[in-house]
Amino acid sequence: MDLSLTDVHALVAETLIRCRTAEANAAHVADALIAAELAGQVGHGLRRVPSYAGQALSGKVDGQAMPEASVSRPGALMVDAAHGFAYPALALAMDWLPGAAETQGIAVAGITRSHHAGVAGWFVERLAEHGLAALMFANTPGAMAPPGGTRPLFGTNPIAFSAPIPDAAPMVVDLSLSTVARGKIMAAAQKGEPIPEGWATDADGNPTTDPQAALKGMMQPIGDAKGAALALMVEVLAAGLTGATLAGDASDFFGADGPPPGTGQLLLAIDPMALGGDSALARIGALAAAFDGNGTARLPGRRRQEIAARVRADGVTIDDALAAQIDALGR
Amino acid sequence: MDLSLTDVHALVAETLIRCRTAEANAAHVADALIAAELAGQVGHGLRRVPSYAGQALSGKVDGQAMPEASVSRPGALMVDAAHGFAYPALALAMDWLPGAAETQGIAVAGITRSHHAGVAGWFVERLAEHGLAALMFANTPGAMAPPGGTRPLFGTNPIAFSAPIPDAAPMVVDLSLSTVARGKIMAAAQKGEPIPEGWATDADGNPTTDPQAALKGMMQPIGDAKGAALALMVEVLAAGLTGATLAGDASDFFGADGPPPGTGQLLLAIDPMALGGDSALARIGALAAAFDGNGTARLPGRRRQEIAARVRADGVTIDDALAAQIDALGR
Repeated sequence: MDLSLTDVHALVAETLIRCRTAEANAAHVADALIAAELAGQVGHGLRRVPSYAGQALSGKVDGQAMPEASVSRPGALMVDAAHGFAYPALALAMDWLPGAAETQGIAVAGITRSHHAGVAGWFVERLAEHGLAALMFANTPGAMAPPGGTRPLFGTNPIAFSAPIPDAAPMVVDLSLSTVARGKIMAAAQKGEPIPEGWATDADGNPTTDPQAALKGMMQPIGDAKGAALALMVEVLAAGLTGATLAGDASDFFGADGPPPGTGQLLLAIDPMALGGDSALARIGALAAAFDGNGTARLPGRRRQEIAARVRADGVTIDDALAAQIDALGR
Repeated sequence: MDLSLTDVHALVAETLIRCRTAEANAAHVADALIAAELAGQVGHGLRRVPSYAGQALSGKVDGQAMPEASVSRPGALMVDAAHGFAYPALALAMDWLPGAAETQGIAVAGITRSHHAGVAGWFVERLAEHGLAALMFANTPGAMAPPGGTRPLFGTNPIAFSAPIPDAAPMVVDLSLSTVARGKIMAAAQKGEPIPEGWATDADGNPTTDPQAALKGMMQPIGDAKGAALALMVEVLAAGLTGATLAGDASDFFGADGPPPGTGQLLLAIDPMALGGDSALARIGALAAAFDGNGTARLPGRRRQEIAARVRADGVTIDDALAAQIDALGR
């Protein structure tokens, strides 16, 4: 079944409203799940509705919570997501950042007591459409250990970056710091196939090619010690600076049981006009242009922008089982 | 021969002054090379003196250039290094950032028409000693291609990060985005040994284990496409936003010939007190403490801080050949 984006929005919002979520918050969640479908990140899209609804019903996410934002300094905003969904809190940050970045040259928004933030690239891409370079960091429940470590101190901890390009859509970098997504290990486990070296360790931190041991263990960061160091950086930026729950202490983003994860996010926006000005935009344009005709290289962001155009035209495909599952939620 | 830090400073400064470098600039270069020795990054330390002196003599680096800083917005500083050494320009940024970050919550300094920035971790660590979380990005001459690409668009593009820890020295993350440093390939070439897969490509962008082909080719980023995307991000932050020379167009940092490299750097400083406040410092402290007793894990930065203590006590070892080479410079 293909649904228009309007239909998807109504489906998600109405479902969450049935599941103890305030109307305004449900609308922000619907926006974010559509954003994930547009980015081709379907694992952060409609498929999340049952998990989100379950957490709203159990109270692990407080669907009624209204985030509160306070400007602490001219260039800094702190948002308390109050253990509700991340998206209403992110919306407050997104409303404030462009004006502050233009006035101050750079602005930062931190979010605490937050939850799954979906597709980080979506938010920075929107800021780039305001003419800003933007960074987003998020911590996620514990998944990776430092080199030599036996306990996870970091999530897969995404980094997203976007920058405006003259006369073109923004570039968008959006990645997590694990070698692969956990879903790839689950797929190998289902098929009974070994996983490549470098993907995961067992629970003791030893490298493994056994997907079952990997699922009980930890993910491996890109570039070994370098990726782990970047994951530490993201952990400090997203959870440390905001006073949010550290990855090693955070409950998962999926199940309905347990305390709220309470993770954090940090967004930065920089006005190129406050630094290199027109020559900044020219340089970024030249860098983007240098991808053309450079072997088979493509500028990061272009693939997701093609997917977005297709999804806007064709709608979102939802399988009958998921549609029936969503329809039953909260009834 | 072991030299005290005072003697190293005098040696470097006097040598550069003999090589067409202004006294104030020579002092900043000496400070930075000592910083590299303290960080255990000897490749960025005293060994650079012949290369720096050669570039100052040829005019590839303008040793007389005085950097100019201008505050464009309350939270943004732009510094023109004027094709001189990077360090005098970095010093202007380092002077301005703490006050601006404390007042604004976050501040950014961009540097353009710059040169080799040495050990990025050194600068962010100093900002963390002011109680700030700090990031530094630098672009470097072209060394890495995007996935599928046949021409280098990025340098090895270092990222450095530091954050204050209550009652302890700051954590320091400092890494380049190539799998290994180019020096490791040179060492393999000298020994006639193959290099592991994943280190480098040949000049056409095909993976190679032949160190000779690798030296004519390109470095590989950590985590394949992910590292390349991070290198793009650093390229935009450090060179794009500042209007500096892109990696693909920049001359090398070593030889005395050719135009100035003209690369860029970007530093960010964030006041934790403007975000999570005391709970931010407590979280960062808890994260740092979680490294203790976690297998053999060590907090990034601790190793370099041990080296710094040793070098402060014992001085810098300089071999006779290098000492003689330096002594002859500019005479």
